[in-house]
Amino acid sequence: MSFSLTLQDIKEARARIETYIVRTPIIKSYKLSERFGCEIYIKPEIFQPIGAFKVRGALSKALSVSAEERAHGLITTSSGNHAQGVAYAGRMLGVRAVIVMQPDGPVQKRENTEALGGEIMFAEGDYEVRWKKVLEIAAENGFVPIHAYDDPAVMAGQGTIGMEILEDLSDVDTVIVPIGGGGLISGVSTAVKGLDTSVRVVGAEPDATAVFQKSRANGRPTSIPVTHTIADGLQLSVPKENAFSVIEKNVDELITVRDETMKEAVRMIARDVKILAEPSSAICLGTLIENKLKVSPGEKVCMVITGGNWGLDKMAEIFAEK
Amino acid sequence: MSFSLTLQDIKEARARIETYIVRTPIIKSYKLSERFGCEIYIKPEIFQPIGAFKVRGALSKALSVSAEERAHGLITTSSGNHAQGVAYAGRMLGVRAVIVMQPDGPVQKRENTEALGGEIMFAEGDYEVRWKKVLEIAAENGFVPIHAYDDPAVMAGQGTIGMEILEDLSDVDTVIVPIGGGGLISGVSTAVKGLDTSVRVVGAEPDATAVFQKSRANGRPTSIPVTHTIADGLQLSVPKENAFSVIEKNVDELITVRDETMKEAVRMIARDVKILAEPSSAICLGTLIENKLKVSPGEKVCMVITGGNWGLDKMAEIFAEK
Repeated sequence: MSFSLTLQDIKEARARIETYIVRTPIIKSYKLSERFGCEIYIKPEIFQPIGAFKVRGALSKALSVSAEERAHGLITTSSGNHAQGVAYAGRMLGVRAVIVMQPDGPVQKRENTEALGGEIMFAEGDYEVRWKKVLEIAAENGFVPIHAYDDPAVMAGQGTIGMEILEDLSDVDTVIVPIGGGGLISGVSTAVKGLDTSVRVVGAEPDATAVFQKSRANGRPTSIPVTHTIADGLQLSVPKENAFSVIEKNVDELITVRDETMKEAVRMIARDVKILAEPSSAICLGTLIENKLKVSPGEKVCMVITGGNWGLDKMAEIFAEK
Repeated sequence: MSFSLTLQDIKEARARIETYIVRTPIIKSYKLSERFGCEIYIKPEIFQPIGAFKVRGALSKALSVSAEERAHGLITTSSGNHAQGVAYAGRMLGVRAVIVMQPDGPVQKRENTEALGGEIMFAEGDYEVRWKKVLEIAAENGFVPIHAYDDPAVMAGQGTIGMEILEDLSDVDTVIVPIGGGGLISGVSTAVKGLDTSVRVVGAEPDATAVFQKSRANGRPTSIPVTHTIADGLQLSVPKENAFSVIEKNVDELITVRDETMKEAVRMIARDVKILAEPSSAICLGTLIENKLKVSPGEKVCMVITGGNWGLDKMAEIFAEK
């Protein structure tokens, strides 16, 4: 099966999901703009029903198959926001949502997923091992498997963010997007470049897991050892060919950000914008804090604040550090 | 001078200020809605340039006089968000903004005001004493005095929030507004009732300083001793006749909220909506947490989240309490 992702795919995804998701606004930050000498806007996906953008991709995939096909249910593996995205999609569409998790994962994320009606199953192993398990269970039970990022329908769903940015801020110059598995930036960059090739698209990766930057340097998808980063939603070890090809085609710059900088960005966003961004979201601002993203006066920069699901106890620790 | 405040005043205020302020969106909270069994929306004034709604009233007043009249500058007394509102107005309009503060006030709020170009002057005494000083300095220097709440132009500016709510959520059933001096709720209730008399307007006061509830019970403005509340923006001792008369005419219910509940509301808003509301804003949600505001299933309730200017260190303390 050959892979392709086009603006048309994203338009179709949008038609499928728009009644289920929040049309998040674009908000200008006066204080960040002044601080960095350009015009800074945020796209706050924290206002989605699950506090993160992942509902878009999950619903896009679930609605890309017929009602008969999804009647048995949805299935995925994730311990993060994607788990909640699929659980929410199941709930909205009135079908089961099965989430395969590691038994030693965070209890809170499990509880959040269960609160949305998600049925938890446990499986050991890394993501690839668990995904294989997902496909087995899906085949046995007729469930629709929803990969967290390596699926064109999921990418197209996330890409609806890019369409909305261009609609609400048609003269945007630069869009910054966090990179984990690459599903979000694949969708957003396809939408943005499809609508206006002059917009600069920047991807932000954790310094500790700069998989796509390394892959770009090597000219091919290049794995790295599993490494810890505070940006748990962006931790990646093995990049996928599909995301790599879209990123190489559409993403103008790949910038890495250190964990300490992400924490500083969490604080700065809280102080200046009054919202709670998890480190995986705050990474966008980190590109400016580390002075790696070059901007001009008056340049309109939009950062996708992907989610805010970070325990208040852990948030208090970050706040207290400085 | 007889006092009056009408929908027309608010429409005119809006025409004056709209190019200077942020048109904040209305955001539905899926999680709060589920928790309280109705449809909960927020109007996040945290996204104003100074992180609070006070820019509206300050600009409305500053722009209600001629350019010649304001050329010498603006003046007020406040140690809170109104200080920043007037400083911002001065900056936007290219005139001086003088803020009279108590010498022992919070350093951070002073610095925030100075960062906006506000000129700080110190004066001892309570609000009434300092306001008298403001009027003296204004007369000597030709400054425009901008009271924090007891001025129809200021009230009209704050009331633009009510117009925006009705435009974006025309079938809203209930609007909840924090009450301090009463300027915000005077404006918002005048706008809301002027546009749709069927909308319920609820005012939330700190339990510790329930001045307007007591005044309502007595049938006349009734002072209370100065009392501490965590909702520093809502602390009031001496109610004004003008705000009292508007509240008696327009506000359907007055509800008191305890300090502990406000802290719980700060945490709940952070967890469920992912924004930082200062206690003076979170008080709106406190009316539901204390089960004092009665709501029906499907009822559309909009809370004005007036500001988010609360130090991260103090926010960390509230987060850590539970």
